[in-house]
Amino acid sequence: MKKIPTKIYLEERELPKKWYNLRADMKSKPEPMLHPGTLNPCTLEDILPVFCTELAKQELNDTDRFVEIPEELRAMYSMFRPSPLIRAYGLEKALGTPAHIYYKFEGNNTSGSHKLNSAMAQAYYAKKEGLTSLTTETGAGQWGTALSMACAHCGIDLSVYMVKVSSEQKPYRKAVMETYGAKVIASPSNTTNTGRAILEGDPKTGGSLGCAISEAIEVAVTTENCRYVLGSVMNHVLLHQSVIGLEAQAAFEKIGVKPDIIVGCTGGGSNLGGLIAPFMGEKLRGKKDYRFVAVEPASCPSLTRGKYLYDFGDTACTTPLIRMYTLGSKFIPSANHAGGLRYHGMSPVISKLFHDGHIEAIAETQTDVFESAKLFAKAEGILPAPESSHAIKGAINEALKCKEKGEKKVILFGLSGTGYFDMQAYMAFNSGTLSDTIPTDAEIAKWIDTIPKIPQNA
Amino acid sequence: MKKIPTKIYLEERELPKKWYNLRADMKSKPEPMLHPGTLNPCTLEDILPVFCTELAKQELNDTDRFVEIPEELRAMYSMFRPSPLIRAYGLEKALGTPAHIYYKFEGNNTSGSHKLNSAMAQAYYAKKEGLTSLTTETGAGQWGTALSMACAHCGIDLSVYMVKVSSEQKPYRKAVMETYGAKVIASPSNTTNTGRAILEGDPKTGGSLGCAISEAIEVAVTTENCRYVLGSVMNHVLLHQSVIGLEAQAAFEKIGVKPDIIVGCTGGGSNLGGLIAPFMGEKLRGKKDYRFVAVEPASCPSLTRGKYLYDFGDTACTTPLIRMYTLGSKFIPSANHAGGLRYHGMSPVISKLFHDGHIEAIAETQTDVFESAKLFAKAEGILPAPESSHAIKGAINEALKCKEKGEKKVILFGLSGTGYFDMQAYMAFNSGTLSDTIPTDAEIAKWIDTIPKIPQNA
Repeated sequence: MKKIPTKIYLEERELPKKWYNLRADMKSKPEPMLHPGTLNPCTLEDILPVFCTELAKQELNDTDRFVEIPEELRAMYSMFRPSPLIRAYGLEKALGTPAHIYYKFEGNNTSGSHKLNSAMAQAYYAKKEGLTSLTTETGAGQWGTALSMACAHCGIDLSVYMVKVSSEQKPYRKAVMETYGAKVIASPSNTTNTGRAILEGDPKTGGSLGCAISEAIEVAVTTENCRYVLGSVMNHVLLHQSVIGLEAQAAFEKIGVKPDIIVGCTGGGSNLGGLIAPFMGEKLRGKKDYRFVAVEPASCPSLTRGKYLYDFGDTACTTPLIRMYTLGSKFIPSANHAGGLRYHGMSPVISKLFHDGHIEAIAETQTDVFESAKLFAKAEGILPAPESSHAIKGAINEALKCKEKGEKKVILFGLSGTGYFDMQAYMAFNSGTLSDTIPTDAEIAKWIDTIPKIPQNA
Repeated sequence: MKKIPTKIYLEERELPKKWYNLRADMKSKPEPMLHPGTLNPCTLEDILPVFCTELAKQELNDTDRFVEIPEELRAMYSMFRPSPLIRAYGLEKALGTPAHIYYKFEGNNTSGSHKLNSAMAQAYYAKKEGLTSLTTETGAGQWGTALSMACAHCGIDLSVYMVKVSSEQKPYRKAVMETYGAKVIASPSNTTNTGRAILEGDPKTGGSLGCAISEAIEVAVTTENCRYVLGSVMNHVLLHQSVIGLEAQAAFEKIGVKPDIIVGCTGGGSNLGGLIAPFMGEKLRGKKDYRFVAVEPASCPSLTRGKYLYDFGDTACTTPLIRMYTLGSKFIPSANHAGGLRYHGMSPVISKLFHDGHIEAIAETQTDVFESAKLFAKAEGILPAPESSHAIKGAINEALKCKEKGEKKVILFGLSGTGYFDMQAYMAFNSGTLSDTIPTDAEIAKWIDTIPKIPQNA
């Protein structure tokens, strides 16, 4: 039998020409966003003041199975795509498992993660629609970096509201964004009413993602030719991220292999959603059965311990209401180095699929996750992001089950990014000072109690 | 005409099976290393106490045109190779040049540079020969990181002597090495006689590369089953790095293109030497003419302002004498963020080729280099290492000459690595605090005066 190469690359001409819109194949659709004032489903007109037109349309489109990727955007994708599908020979050997492990690696670009797939698309549409500037928020920094690169490439101004504590802890992330020409503002700031109000109440606050979102939205809606963009949770973001799964599917076809189990990490759900999309489509259409496993941090367990309710997307309660697995929008996760997974909610698509039993979910502690990360780094030569390392841990769990049972399953996981800007976390792990804080049931109940008591939540 | 894809990847089975030994095709060979005591050419026996046997043999082999890459090592290479040859469509557009620009990108691995090509080879041979530990020095950290990854993969212990000032300025580089299990010691240290002597004389010294080399050698020769390895300058390192040029050559063949001008950055010469090797071979054999351009920092201009003399490789004058372009082994370059290019000497192979007129050389200031780096980052989406950015600057110079003359030349340059661990330098550049210090003629003359006055230097 011919040996499967370590890396399976598609040709550039094999880059997907269309995104795959999983919602079109979901008989049981995700619930619609609700206008927080009227509690009616959001219309295009409701969301146009905040979002670019094309993105707003994509957000509400749950009928077209495929959405064309414009030719010009495909050329931009070709700067960093196709990304490789990698056979984890080194990891398999280190684990002594009969399982075949593959990972789709999205970290080979300067943003260091899959976020660039949606950032490029969003900057492209903004430019096309004649916008001159964008605003966004960033926590861990991956999204802000990706959008900075995309805006620099398209020639659009960008203001990034970066959670203050994060901008202080990660000066190098800030420096990358600034090198790409973005204006990075520590949030809360005195550039917005929201920021000023928060600073007045607590001048020493380290900020929060919720506050940064509110500031970015305020600037977008009060600035001419400006819109707000975001990098996860939303349907249009998952649509863009479907390139991950489509490429993985095409690469597997090249080598005549089908995965049995697909594992991804989940914060807002964009990486998992993009990775599983076409495979989930096959499952929903009855073509092939797969097991899907979502791995989340034990410190922020929205799928495993949250509730499937309508809730706000931000702490300040300014967004539409979204039906999703949530810990309550006031939830403050304990310190966890996987900043990209510290979100109280979850993509409505992933939430619905989980609610309907199509996805399994597990929660892992960060010390276990870093143990897996280190094993992976040595065996595979890539230092993974703390976020992505949750997927590694999930894949290792499955590979060890295969070893126990002597099963030769094919496991695919999403390696969403690299950890080069997360060395502080690795230093803590190496020195043994990394610890785990898991919320108690009483704490979770208290946060969930802050979710709005609207009729739909009954 | 078919559009040339942005990235040209070889198949894994097209990975070079043999390294190309350029010295075999040099009618006028590099001068031999001399034993500093006898001033006779070094024999195998002279260097075996310091180097692994196979590496020592490769060091002295200037007759075999090809050296086989062991099958097991090729499998290790396949973790991060083949590396892409990239058509710089974005940069061409940004410059408005008719030139076609390509770059061979070596940064898509966790070490972030081409150094892993030789690190994997050296760790592989060390393991094969039954060694249990290695020592090395690192300045900027790329080499130390690459060797840490290679040793972790092969299961060999590693001690890295890291220039103290660098280990303090780059804690994250140190953290990556430690994550891969290496022992990182700030040099000078109290673990060696050399280190203790230096610390006694100057307890507050920030250390130097020369001192770190001396400490690493001392430990290697006094520890059982241990050898010293290094990542540039030496002939065997350039041999390993020939995979860069061989892959570039094969990729160009795929698309039916031949470069006219080949540009690389030079510190010790390993990247440039590897990139140009097979092309220079064609030139020396009269098959095709190319222009080769070496770009060095104006603050450490060994080719452009040094002398072609026998000199020591380290400050402590413990190595064999090497005939090379040198500024004197006591030369202390002014602060420059391209740490990997701050070396007083130059590979003997590159030195000889330059001396014989086969290579041109230019020196660039770091502010100009960072300007090019930023332009490149925006146009191509990759944040380059300060070292590699010298090659970018050199390629831009040539592309702008083409624009002026309306010439459609094909330019190839080596993008040896990424700048993710160099954000301090970018921050200085972004804030306008980066400055240039170029040594005066009198200063250079003073350093050159420290070169040993042996008969061969007459």
